[in-house]
This record gives sequence, structure tokens and C-alpha cells, in this order.
Amino acid sequence: MEKLSKPATEAPAESGTAHSFACRVALIGFGTVGRAVAKILCEQGTDSVRVTHICNRNVERKKQSWVPGNVIWTDDVQSVLNADVQIVIELIGGLNPAEQIVRSALEAGKSVVTANKQLIARHGPDLLQLAHRRGCQLEFGASVAGGVPVLPALRTGLSGDRLHGIAGILNGTCNYILSRIENDRIPFSEALEEAQARGYAEADASEDLDGGDARAKLTILALAGLHTRVIPESVRARTIRSIDAVDFDYAAELGCTIRQISRADLKAETLFAEVGPCLVPTDSPFGRVQRNLNLVLTSGQYGGDMAFLGAGAGGDPTAVAVVSDVLFVAQNLSGGAARKIASAKVSAPAISSDFETPWYLRFFVRDQPGIVARLAQILAEHHLNIDSVLQKPGFDKAALPFVITLELCRDSQLHPALEKMSALEFSLRPCLCLPILR
Amino acid sequence: MEKLSKPATEAPAESGTAHSFACRVALIGFGTVGRAVAKILCEQGTDSVRVTHICNRNVERKKQSWVPGNVIWTDDVQSVLNADVQIVIELIGGLNPAEQIVRSALEAGKSVVTANKQLIARHGPDLLQLAHRRGCQLEFGASVAGGVPVLPALRTGLSGDRLHGIAGILNGTCNYILSRIENDRIPFSEALEEAQARGYAEADASEDLDGGDARAKLTILALAGLHTRVIPESVRARTIRSIDAVDFDYAAELGCTIRQISRADLKAETLFAEVGPCLVPTDSPFGRVQRNLNLVLTSGQYGGDMAFLGAGAGGDPTAVAVVSDVLFVAQNLSGGAARKIASAKVSAPAISSDFETPWYLRFFVRDQPGIVARLAQILAEHHLNIDSVLQKPGFDKAALPFVITLELCRDSQLHPALEKMSALEFSLRPCLCLPILR
Repeated sequence: MEKLSKPATEAPAESGTAHSFACRVALIGFGTVGRAVAKILCEQGTDSVRVTHICNRNVERKKQSWVPGNVIWTDDVQSVLNADVQIVIELIGGLNPAEQIVRSALEAGKSVVTANKQLIARHGPDLLQLAHRRGCQLEFGASVAGGVPVLPALRTGLSGDRLHGIAGILNGTCNYILSRIENDRIPFSEALEEAQARGYAEADASEDLDGGDARAKLTILALAGLHTRVIPESVRARTIRSIDAVDFDYAAELGCTIRQISRADLKAETLFAEVGPCLVPTDSPFGRVQRNLNLVLTSGQYGGDMAFLGAGAGGDPTAVAVVSDVLFVAQNLSGGAARKIASAKVSAPAISSDFETPWYLRFFVRDQPGIVARLAQILAEHHLNIDSVLQKPGFDKAALPFVITLELCRDSQLHPALEKMSALEFSLRPCLCLPILR
Repeated sequence: MEKLSKPATEAPAESGTAHSFACRVALIGFGTVGRAVAKILCEQGTDSVRVTHICNRNVERKKQSWVPGNVIWTDDVQSVLNADVQIVIELIGGLNPAEQIVRSALEAGKSVVTANKQLIARHGPDLLQLAHRRGCQLEFGASVAGGVPVLPALRTGLSGDRLHGIAGILNGTCNYILSRIENDRIPFSEALEEAQARGYAEADASEDLDGGDARAKLTILALAGLHTRVIPESVRARTIRSIDAVDFDYAAELGCTIRQISRADLKAETLFAEVGPCLVPTDSPFGRVQRNLNLVLTSGQYGGDMAFLGAGAGGDPTAVAVVSDVLFVAQNLSGGAARKIASAKVSAPAISSDFETPWYLRFFVRDQPGIVARLAQILAEHHLNIDSVLQKPGFDKAALPFVITLELCRDSQLHPALEKMSALEFSLRPCLCLPILR
């Protein structure tokens, strides 16, 4: 409690004694991500943070029944900034008024968690310095690649490396459009219309198509991973609008496909950086990323190459990144008390290896008539369904390998049948039994 | 400074005033990983941590010239535990005496960073509780998947999710052997011997082949990601010794290959968990993991599926994980001062998009004789080497797409040629110019 950055000025009456270290959190911006953040925080019932304020324009129409009754709903940002909260979550996006809200919060010594990529790309270094000056924290794990924890990994697990390169598929809209053209050779305009109809692209998709969105994210990755301060506009962005279905035909001739790639390589005193469509090998990690997934590759002097893949957008994945940042800040503010609670929640469940799965059974037998019939009979007696029988030619009849695959069943159903089959007189080795993961 | 968990009892004389908040770190165990950890800490010249002790048996023969002269080399563990250090790095491995060393350090209020998977798999929950009781930290990011930052991601970027499943390729030895059999259909015994000869497998490889190593790692992932306390021996482990080259033939018939998979699924009150060879689709993330790489997939209620891929072993990647944990602990102990230093190191390099790469040039032309000759002449004048000329049949002669690929050259070399080519009278659109990433 003594390590809370700002001592509470009001008595934390509602929070009760048991949870008196709970961080008080205000949520500014209650759109898709804001609602998902509130939902996770309410559902998880974490003891280390407590939402006290939700702020949005026309807040009345935003109210949700699942939000606890003691949360204050307001459309007055200033009242939230004046309130006794330790963490402000900024989810309104854009530069104005988000920048002023974040600066005011930090000036007031409140830590800030944001998903605002334009704000961090443009003002990240300054805002980080402001946060440090005021003894609070600024986290922005949700600003790049949504739920893919690449920024947290750069902050923690990779901090001991010296990275020299970062490359990624950072814009789900472009990737959706390009992989749609790749798969069905539809015209660019048709792929774009489809993406818009499905909500993967906005009516004005320029920010996505022309690379502005990915460039802001690359700027943030370069800041967090390469420790470079870059003005987003100084990074060249090439549009994907000029890509034609025929380019996928020619790319295929070269063993490649086309993806919007954002990349930054630090060499000596120069940061080589750009965003735009590139040919990538079809069987490379980039070439295999379909739909609106995000992939980030990092290259380090000591740890070599790492890859991070996952859902780059969407309310829930982005909310995971925001909530994770909130928990991280709360843990720091509480001097580890938050983590203590988390570790106390460890459970000791029953352990089972009784997976339900399809199975691969491989037999080595001395060939003789009627083997499959005998095995099939045992399987039928145990209510196990055969999916296929495979026997490749050319093996020694004295030690013949062949395979039976089974439909979905539990390990425990299969086991007695296995014992019977392995005891048969033509069986040369115990049956090899492997789960088939689909 | 006031947040350092243990106030210094000796005056930090050598550290000087500017770095007086540097965490004092002792390294116990100076093998491959220990040496790599020391090297990174010395090379990076971080201001937030300072190695003060290196402890190993027969320490004299271990001394390195690149270690600063003020580091104390010792073979007396007790003297290290009694010394004024805030962080102890345990890299001796095994349970005994590592367990006693870690317990003693934590009891003394020193934070511990360890790569010891057997210790954490067996005693992790208790040791974490001990650490919390004593107000210090225990981190073990290097104990699973070496340099792949999956444990840090579970601790930070995914902490806001509720995970229900974790699966991974966690043992590089098994993956090396299985992917060798897959690629060349060599017998198991030959693949094992090769792995041993190359240093990927120990003389007694039972711990790897029979799943003990992966099981310990799965236990740790289940603790960190699913918040379950599991006794490693309660997880079934199946050996890969029974896999035959012929199994890869049959698996291929099913569109699959074989990998050692470690998996844990939390369903209601039961943890389904096991380690062993499984059939996985050849074109799945698991199926594509070759050699000694590690892959971990997580499944969460909110964020969906995430994948982490990278080098799972080796001195340098493992050392990155250890150093990252040390920096993380130092940051917590210094109340953010360490991070402040890190953020001050942001540089503002020159920005360039002048990548050197092979290129894809796509033209739309009104067909006429001599087009390729004209283009080739311009390219030759600019000293650009053609790699291939591609022209697919069946297009309208009035708007014919064709492609020239170029060997490696800089964007700046290419640009003047592009301008000339786009100005040619038969050119219907500006040439589309894409980098080819290999």
C-alpha cells in the first residue's frame, strides 16, 4: 500500500478492508474495446483493480446492466481526471482530445493505459518521459497487433537482447484483402468491398490501404524494440491499391505471394524502414498468414529470430492487451501485492490424460489371413469406430507394418482394446498408438 | 532508491554516485548459460544491474578476461548468499543443491532468477509463496522454451485473458530427431546418434526422449498460464523411442507428420495433460516446426489463439531470457528507475527506405515488338541485373501484363531506371515495383 504512487485522498470506503489495495481505474471511451475491457474486468472479478468511472459522450445510452452499481457513469472527462483514481484507460482514439487527456492524467500523477497507436507513434517518447517525471506509468501494449503480446514481450522477455530487426504483418485489413485476392483471384475492388461489408475495412480505408496505420505501429515497435525515436511520416509507405490479381499469378511463378510488410532494420546509425506490399515466399511465415491475423518477427543479436502470431484486432483480443497492461501497472503500483493475489489463486485440479481424439494405431504383424478381421472384431466389441485401414506395399510379410485409424474416442475407451490386440499371436510388437491432432 | 527491497548494508563504494541504484547481482553457476549471461551483462553495459559475484566450483579455471576486475570470483556459495546482493541468478540446474540455494536466497530477502525447470516444476508454487512472504521476487522465464518469451508473455501481455489451453513443442532434441526422420526416413537410432554427435542430445537422452524434460516444462506453463499446481509425475509421458520411419510414411498418407507435443487443457475441474508423440497435420504450425525450434500455442477465452516460435535452447537465447528477468526484477526493485534509464537511451537515427533487395517489376504495356529489349537496355544502363522475365499467355495484347525480376540492388539505384521505363510510349501504367523478401 505504501508504494501506491498517489496516496488516496478520499477514504476508499466501498472497497472494503480486504481489498483496500485495489487500484482505482477510470475508463475513458466506451466503444467496442472499452466495453470488452469493462466486461473482462467485471467477469474476472480481479481483486487488484476496481473500475470506478466510465466516461463517454452521451453516456446514458451506453449504460450496461452487468456493470456494478457503484461505478460512476459520466460524460465529464475533467471530473474523471480530478477523481481519486490511480489508472486512466484511454480508449477514445485519435489525437484530439486523447493527447490532452493523457497528458493531463500523467501530469496529475495517474498512470495511463492506452490502445491509441496514433498518439503513441507521434508522442510516445515525450509521454513516456512525462510519465517518468511524474512517477507514474504509461503502457500501450494494445496499440500494436491487438491481442498479440509482442509489445509486452519486447518490454520483458526480450529486454535482455539487443534487437536489430523487426518485421510484421500489422494491418489486418490489408492482409484480409491480399489473402482474398490470393485465394480466389478476385479484383482488388471486389476484395475491398467484401472487407468493408464484413466490417474488416472502413468506408474510407486509406489509412489501412496506403500504409498509414501500419506505419504508426511500426514506429511504436521501433521505439519499444529498437529504442529509436521515429517520426511516422519519415517512414515510406507504399499503397496496396496498385496490386492486381495478375500479380499473384506472377508471384506464384516465383514461389511467392504478396503481403503488406512493415519492416525496420537498424544498421549502424541508420534505421531502414518502410511499409508496403512485398513478395514473400508462399511457404514462409509471412506467406502463410491468412485473413486478419497479425505476425511479428524480431531478430536479436543473442536470441536470434522470434515469431509472434495471433488476432491483431477485434474488441476482445485488444481488450486482453489493455487489461493485461492495467494488471501490470496495478502490480507495480501495489508493490507486488497484486501479484501475490494472483499467485494465491493457483488451483490443484484433477489431472487426466484421457483426451478424446482420433487415433493412429500402427501394428507390426506376421502376415496371415484374417488379421484385419480379428482386429476389427475387437474394436467393434469395444464400440470403437474405424476411420481407415492403411497398408503400404513392399514390406516383408514376416514383419508387416500397417495402420488403422479410429474416429474420436477417449483414451480410456481405447486402452482395453489395445491390450487385447497386442496379445494376439500374430502381433510382433505392442501396437503403437498416437493421438491425431487436428 | 527507497524501494530497493534490501537496503545496502555496505556502502556501494565502487558503483559511484551516478549508478548508485544499480542492482547488485550474483551469478551462481558459470557454465554455457552462465557465461552467456555474464557476457550480455558486461557487453550491454546496463546501468541498472551490476554483477558483483560469480560463483562456481573450481572457479579459478573459469575466470574470463572480459569480466570487470571488481567482480568477486568464488566457489563459496554461502559467502554469496551472505553478501550484499539484491538478485541471485541460479544456473547450476538440478534439484540439489539448487533448491537449498534458492530457498536460502529467498529467505534472506534476495530476489532469484533461475533457468531451472526441474526445480520450478517441482517446487515453483512453494518458492513463489516464499518469495512473496519475504518481499522479494522469483522469476524463471528461461525455464521453458529458452529464449522464446512465452512465460514473460503469460506474466504480462496475456495476464488479462483467461487461458484454457496450452500446447507446445517444448523439447528441441525430440523435434530434431523426429524432423530428421521425417525428412530423410533414417532409422530412429541413426537420428539419435546424429543428434548426440551434434550436441543436440545427451549421452543418456532418456529425459528428453521419454518426455520428462517436456513434462517439467508443461507443468511450469500450466502454473504460469492456467494457474494450476501440478506434480510433474502426474502427467503422462509417452516415449518417442517407439516411432519408426514407417510411421512417417503412414502419417504422410493422412496428411500428417509426427511431433512430440506437450498439451494441457483445463476443462471444468480437470486438467487434461500429457506429453508424447502425436500426429499433426503437415501444414499446421506444429507440423512445420523443424529442427530444434520451440513453438507454444495458447488458447484464451477472450484473445483466442496465440503462437510463439523461436530458439528453445542454446546458451545465448537462454541467456536473453535470464537477463530479461534480471532487468525486470531490477526495474521492480528500483521503483522504475531502471526503466527510466532504458527509456533515456532512445536514439533518433537517420531513416532510410533504401533497402537492398531483389525486385519484382510488373509492367502493363500495349504490346509491340522490342519492348523487352528497350526495358533491358535501360536496366543495363543503370547497371541493374535481370534475374528473370515472366510473361504468362492469354492476356489482351492491348494491355499486356508481364514481369521482370531483378537481382539484389538498392531502391535508390533502381528509381531512376523506373522513371525512364514508366515514361516509355508503350507503358500503360506506372511500373509496379515490389521488394522480394527471401
